Amino acid sequence: MRNITVLAGGVGGARFVRGLRDLVDGSDTSISVVANTGDDLWLAGLRVCPDLDSIMYTLGGASDEGRGWGRVGESERVSAELDAYGIGWPWFTLGDLDLGTHIARTSLLRDGLTLTETTARLTARWDLGVRLLPVTDHEVETHVEIVDADEGTSRLIHFEEWWVRHRAGVPARAFVQRGIESARATESAIDAVRSADVVLVAPSNPVVSIGTLVAIPGVAEALHRTVAPVVGVSPLIGGRAVRGMAPACLAAIGVDSTASAVAAHYGARAAGGLIDAWLVDDSDADSVPAIEARGIRCHAVPLWMTDVAATSAMAAAALRLADELRAHAG
Amino acid sequence: MRNITVLAGGVGGARFVRGLRDLVDGSDTSISVVANTGDDLWLAGLRVCPDLDSIMYTLGGASDEGRGWGRVGESERVSAELDAYGIGWPWFTLGDLDLGTHIARTSLLRDGLTLTETTARLTARWDLGVRLLPVTDHEVETHVEIVDADEGTSRLIHFEEWWVRHRAGVPARAFVQRGIESARATESAIDAVRSADVVLVAPSNPVVSIGTLVAIPGVAEALHRTVAPVVGVSPLIGGRAVRGMAPACLAAIGVDSTASAVAAHYGARAAGGLIDAWLVDDSDADSVPAIEARGIRCHAVPLWMTDVAATSAMAAAALRLADELRAHAG
Repeated sequence: MRNITVLAGGVGGARFVRGLRDLVDGSDTSISVVANTGDDLWLAGLRVCPDLDSIMYTLGGASDEGRGWGRVGESERVSAELDAYGIGWPWFTLGDLDLGTHIARTSLLRDGLTLTETTARLTARWDLGVRLLPVTDHEVETHVEIVDADEGTSRLIHFEEWWVRHRAGVPARAFVQRGIESARATESAIDAVRSADVVLVAPSNPVVSIGTLVAIPGVAEALHRTVAPVVGVSPLIGGRAVRGMAPACLAAIGVDSTASAVAAHYGARAAGGLIDAWLVDDSDADSVPAIEARGIRCHAVPLWMTDVAATSAMAAAALRLADELRAHAG
Repeated sequence: MRNITVLAGGVGGARFVRGLRDLVDGSDTSISVVANTGDDLWLAGLRVCPDLDSIMYTLGGASDEGRGWGRVGESERVSAELDAYGIGWPWFTLGDLDLGTHIARTSLLRDGLTLTETTARLTARWDLGVRLLPVTDHEVETHVEIVDADEGTSRLIHFEEWWVRHRAGVPARAFVQRGIESARATESAIDAVRSADVVLVAPSNPVVSIGTLVAIPGVAEALHRTVAPVVGVSPLIGGRAVRGMAPACLAAIGVDSTASAVAAHYGARAAGGLIDAWLVDDSDADSVPAIEARGIRCHAVPLWMTDVAATSAMAAAALRLADELRAHAG
């Protein structure tokens, strides 16, 4: 039995895990996905967990692949009612099918279940083929510091307001993880990292997905202590994000939007950083030597997740890197 | 300005109020509806208030007249999701449009608004033409004592389980208003009764709608003290309920399902009861003398709410009874 643990954000992470799941299908492999919860929010009295749901829907075969997010065959009748009552955020539309998840989750949370227990209950409906673990049961919500153009003063807005309403078009000065001081990674998430044979860092947003996830107290220590190699996959290809708006987030923390800059930002695990190895796209092959000079083993392979087969090939390349590291260490 | 206050349950009460509203339209009349909240429930983490919503939808022109309850043009996509997650009661289907109301209400309640304030916020969307007041802001939920056929032991189930799941087909031994000891009618509801020129008791279920409403601490005293005549409309016609399952409820408290038995159960206000006058259907005209012998002024008129015009005529008959009582007193 091989245990693979993936650190993942939402849609990009979900697609990567789907490719990995297909790759290892039929082998004696268990996949645990430790998911970011920093994008979570209370909206209209309901607990919404965008990354957990993106992973659940994508792996459950229920995601809207054309639109790129949410449930396939979605409708928005309830949201129209909420708008009519003036409840919620009119620019954050909750689909009817998606609302079923939020209502069920909120009901279970109100009954006293943890988010981990709640996620286990929700995912039991779907045939995910992986164990989905929120990184923490505590509420940690990312807020974005923006500057009011008129006033010149800065203020914090919820990440989802910045991301969905402003399409990350308002410059971010900083990201603040509200509640992180008193948060703690779950034992399940820590154990998934500690007991893994391989840890993969999905090509998710390095700042608000992976960055937040790793900042949850307990995660960095687990990554530091695990004997598993930690292999990351670049979410940036030739200065562009595979999907999402990573450059707007990276700019806020002063990191260039390149595969090598993100590798340097994550840092070599041997030097107290996050990763042992890093996959970049073929088009970024010329950055491999500089990345390896930082003590991060690096390969260049095609990184566009154009379909499940291409994504499986990426996952295979990541696992090969892990094998090389183990052989090297052994 | 004439102030009319109606004590009402759900659908029957809503239809009666709609007839009254049409009747007084254009006159200088204000209608307050004090609504039963004893059927309310928490379901899938949401606060559902069937009677308040029946009144809101019916007066807002959004009720499903064919089906007799809920929203017109309703769909049930979210409920199917909740079923798939195993959340809620599979036999209590929440429509998508209806869920919009429950989500909005729950969100406002979680924000700390009272049910009265929440109801004001929700009804602001609709053009009701009346002020809709929950009788209490406290949670009072009716439970039904039933006997397990197998065990021979009695147990309590939520009213909605008895009503919707069992279609009132399991004999009820008693109705228990959980939470009523610590509940109190709102000042708004009490004031609506105290300051009314006429109080009408809608043809609603005498046990679980009007009975519960009047049992909320503060209501009986307000009814006792108001100078307004209190005129009731029989929900029973020739031993049948105009709608709903009143006979099953009346049986549990040992009251016959006749207009005169319900009048006797309510009792003459002069003798510490609820009503000064009572409207029965033409077909129950022979019971008028016996009812009047109890000190309750009584008229017989057509009581089938076949359409809004017929219902307006009933409301007009009720107001005529009130005028007679005032003339008699004056």
